[in-house]
Amino acid sequence: MLKGNMVIGQSGGPTAVINQSLVGAILAAREAVGIEKILGARHGLKGIMNEDFIDLNSQTLKQLEAVAQTPAAGLGSVRLKPGKTECERVFEVFKKHNVRYFFYIGGNDSAETAHIIAEMAQQENYALCTMHIPKTIDNDLKVTDHCPGFASAARFVALAFMGDDRDNAALSGVKINVVMGRHAGFLTAASALARQAPGDGPHLIYLPERVFDIARFQQDVRDAVATHGRCVIAVSEGIADAEGNPIASTGERDSHGNIQLSGTGALGDTLAAHVKAAFSGEAIRVRADTFGYLQRSFPATVSEIDRREAREVGAFAVKHAVNTGKSAAIAIRRIANAPYQSEYFDTALSTVAREATEMDDQYINDAGNDVTEAWLAYVRPLVGDLPEIGRL
Amino acid sequence: MLKGNMVIGQSGGPTAVINQSLVGAILAAREAVGIEKILGARHGLKGIMNEDFIDLNSQTLKQLEAVAQTPAAGLGSVRLKPGKTECERVFEVFKKHNVRYFFYIGGNDSAETAHIIAEMAQQENYALCTMHIPKTIDNDLKVTDHCPGFASAARFVALAFMGDDRDNAALSGVKINVVMGRHAGFLTAASALARQAPGDGPHLIYLPERVFDIARFQQDVRDAVATHGRCVIAVSEGIADAEGNPIASTGERDSHGNIQLSGTGALGDTLAAHVKAAFSGEAIRVRADTFGYLQRSFPATVSEIDRREAREVGAFAVKHAVNTGKSAAIAIRRIANAPYQSEYFDTALSTVAREATEMDDQYINDAGNDVTEAWLAYVRPLVGDLPEIGRL
Repeated sequence: MLKGNMVIGQSGGPTAVINQSLVGAILAAREAVGIEKILGARHGLKGIMNEDFIDLNSQTLKQLEAVAQTPAAGLGSVRLKPGKTECERVFEVFKKHNVRYFFYIGGNDSAETAHIIAEMAQQENYALCTMHIPKTIDNDLKVTDHCPGFASAARFVALAFMGDDRDNAALSGVKINVVMGRHAGFLTAASALARQAPGDGPHLIYLPERVFDIARFQQDVRDAVATHGRCVIAVSEGIADAEGNPIASTGERDSHGNIQLSGTGALGDTLAAHVKAAFSGEAIRVRADTFGYLQRSFPATVSEIDRREAREVGAFAVKHAVNTGKSAAIAIRRIANAPYQSEYFDTALSTVAREATEMDDQYINDAGNDVTEAWLAYVRPLVGDLPEIGRL
Repeated sequence: MLKGNMVIGQSGGPTAVINQSLVGAILAAREAVGIEKILGARHGLKGIMNEDFIDLNSQTLKQLEAVAQTPAAGLGSVRLKPGKTECERVFEVFKKHNVRYFFYIGGNDSAETAHIIAEMAQQENYALCTMHIPKTIDNDLKVTDHCPGFASAARFVALAFMGDDRDNAALSGVKINVVMGRHAGFLTAASALARQAPGDGPHLIYLPERVFDIARFQQDVRDAVATHGRCVIAVSEGIADAEGNPIASTGERDSHGNIQLSGTGALGDTLAAHVKAAFSGEAIRVRADTFGYLQRSFPATVSEIDRREAREVGAFAVKHAVNTGKSAAIAIRRIANAPYQSEYFDTALSTVAREATEMDDQYINDAGNDVTEAWLAYVRPLVGDLPEIGRL
């Protein structure tokens, strides 16, 4: 059995339940025979390179449970793709601290980081078990049925649309809500859960999986207003034209080459202007909100299933590592929907690293402006029961 | 005793608990001896003019309770300041339907509408009891200690900042969050409830009660980043320069002359650009979110005290109307903070009509970039307990 110390880090955009995975892993590691010191890397890879560690053996259970309930990465996060120099420094630190277990909680970029480090360990003949623990509100990891963090963000989006659709019904007009999701529309598609009766919004849903055509969008909105007297629209921040250019962006990029889409109202305002142009001459109230970072960090909308799975996936990763000593990524398999049941399994790091997935064609309607029943069947159990809308 | 039918309407921006006031009034009216038919006006004044009424005598208790729990105006809302023609039409309809009780749930603009109608009734010698039931997330009505709807919106804002501050601590940078509030900073100031330990954000709070100076703002942000390595900023959508010009707006206005501030990311993006300029040459991550309509319609963040008071204020208005027959506005008086206690009372419509109030000087710090302990003592009991932030 591999014996030594462990490092755990969090990477990429935080979620409402990423600390559940952290605490699940810490508690399992405290029970594990092969693991001695549990070191938390502050701000992921950056903390490893700077030897900026928190001792995670000494926290009280009460303290850890409070952390688990708190959104966003308790250890701090980072967006950093390691090059050769960074990896060499990581190994220097790992050797110095006799680190034999490395757990990285994150999305596909973080899985790539884990994969690079695992490969380098093999090349250097350094015995290291590297585990990727899945996390992303985008729900775009390969292999797994869904990703911890997604269901809570989806719950926020569904509740937000539920309330906002009532608001729009009270003071009619066109309302555009921009939802996070760079390449995958899962989170935007969760807005459909807000519907409880015919005529409820969102009336149109635009996903990055389909080309966004401004003229078609304008016609869709005119049609919806003709039918409902109003229109609530869910649109992914990642929508792009036929050439793949974002409809609006600031041009800023991170070290993974991702362009900045969130943290600006530019897309919403651009689309609002297109809607106003489509109704030129007619009095119409057009508003745009960009949900922004609240989607991934709101404390009061955690899905119960998400909370439980995020915890369990962290614990499962530690048990798998200690039992097999083999590097891997952890994934979720759905077993049943009613009642919901799932299990965890391991998959090669290479299968989830770098490339992300997107929504299945079966989840998107033919017109490319809505979701299907199959999508609702997929997402509803994850998000859990929602409040009933009362009507006069 | 005044005998006849009753009309109730909702007006202005919806809230998460305005339907509690509606249901509180309906249930009290069903018990009241002087009131026969209970007519709900669809979209406020507009529904009265169009004789677009819902019979509110026949709903089941279960249905009404579901409506009470649902955010946004169940009857529909409107932004319409009645002129002479509109008022004449209102009286025509009131006479035709033998309406002797008129209840209008809304803010200061709605109180003005109620006041105009009450005065016209007196001039025409038409026996009518007009009641204003307070509602506004802005918390800017005169006379009352606070306004139903505010505490739930404040709870949303506090929770949003709590999660977003953790997010910002995990991935450092400057984060600007734009909060609703045209002339009054109450809702923006509620962001301070997110702080639980030294160093927690928001680190700066800008309210419309103080002149917004861009150079001072830039210096404040630089200072905060120097101290905390990051900076979370709460800013009211209504901030304006020394001449009273909004820092960013679309120029659109409603019939009350209110300029459009919400439903656009313009202010957040403008401020983000000012921050980037203040750090010219330095790498700094700057993001801006505009909370938008979620603040007033989110279903999962209702304050318990707000829920109860909104219900009770509706019932109190009906009982006062039937007992006295005299037109009035209803207000809340705070009796104690620990445990929290309040009572309701009537005040002349003219005392709350049209003009709004704003934050007391004692609630704003000398530098004009934060709130005081006195503010926290005022707002904390209304918002209720918040989750504890866990830390490693």
